[in-house]
Amino acid sequence: MSDIIVERLLDSAAELFLERDFHGVSIRELAQRAGTSSGMIRYYFTNKQGLFEAMLKREYDRILNILKDIINQEELVDFVDTMHRVMQVYEKNPNFPRFIVKTYLLRHGPGTQIIKDFFQLEKRIVSSWVRDVIAQGKVDRDANAEVVRIAFMSLTLLPSLMIDTLKESYSEQGYAEFRDQYVAIAGNMVLGSVKPRSRNKSKSTS
Amino acid sequence: MSDIIVERLLDSAAELFLERDFHGVSIRELAQRAGTSSGMIRYYFTNKQGLFEAMLKREYDRILNILKDIINQEELVDFVDTMHRVMQVYEKNPNFPRFIVKTYLLRHGPGTQIIKDFFQLEKRIVSSWVRDVIAQGKVDRDANAEVVRIAFMSLTLLPSLMIDTLKESYSEQGYAEFRDQYVAIAGNMVLGSVKPRSRNKSKSTS
Repeated sequence: MSDIIVERLLDSAAELFLERDFHGVSIRELAQRAGTSSGMIRYYFTNKQGLFEAMLKREYDRILNILKDIINQEELVDFVDTMHRVMQVYEKNPNFPRFIVKTYLLRHGPGTQIIKDFFQLEKRIVSSWVRDVIAQGKVDRDANAEVVRIAFMSLTLLPSLMIDTLKESYSEQGYAEFRDQYVAIAGNMVLGSVKPRSRNKSKSTS
Repeated sequence: MSDIIVERLLDSAAELFLERDFHGVSIRELAQRAGTSSGMIRYYFTNKQGLFEAMLKREYDRILNILKDIINQEELVDFVDTMHRVMQVYEKNPNFPRFIVKTYLLRHGPGTQIIKDFFQLEKRIVSSWVRDVIAQGKVDRDANAEVVRIAFMSLTLLPSLMIDTLKESYSEQGYAEFRDQYVAIAGNMVLGSVKPRSRNKSKSTS
């Protein structure tokens, strides 16, 4: 029961904070949107800042969990699948990618430090993953973790800013088709950049 | 002589308008920064809006000219080189990519229509180029111009927002090395996605 209230509060926070300035959203409005009382916000999150941070953490964790997943895979990661999953997170909350970029561009205000921490964590995860697959001989010796990371971030984050525009020009169904085609090609782009350069399929007996 | 004043006015406009809100920049300030008088702005650009639009047109034309160049190339385009040139334009004026994204996110105010027109023009150029190379049998039959376009835009625009951060963590020299490595890999990513899937280097006699 309490879980339901917490989730509803986090949802209303995602709707309101990611769309509008932190200071332009009131406790009362957050509670009303969630169909509960201001007291519940104080009870579960202490204050507005607490709810704001919990909401951001939930959104970031959805991305970080996907990245942690790819690290734990035995096989060479399926980048198409990973990219699809990340873009679906952004699609479910299109204000989230906009918020990341806006906060990054403004470089101040609530959320700035959380975004810095997120990028640090993401960097550690991706770097250690790329180092692992290099050590296992699965990718080009000269693959650069940072380059792969920035390319992956660019290819998922920027088009996610444009979901509205893309849906406008393609229709809902057309957008879904475009997105699948984009992900297939962009995912293979990244994969192609880290895969060992094409050798014959038959394994050479060393 | 007049060309020098015009260029200086466009430079001061790029510095001030791309950093601050249109309404927060005065004619007097623009003239002072350019070392000239307000009368010169009225003479060459009629008013503040005219100078603003001329400045944006100059910045966009630098990108569009690169794209027009690749269309006129006989050979399959060198994406690494193209990406390098586009990123250099952004590097020379790091406020320009930020302005594009900010205007796109806010979706109102001066510049919004110019950005829409720019993306339309860019779309036409890239689409016609991809159609041409498909018709010439130089790329995969199933290459999608839109996908290539969005990927190229993402891979150049997003990292250009981060130039400051990247220079902070790499130093000026380290950043240049990173950028070259990024461009080499990202450019080959895009190229790999449009190149015919690897056939034997020897041409098959049809």
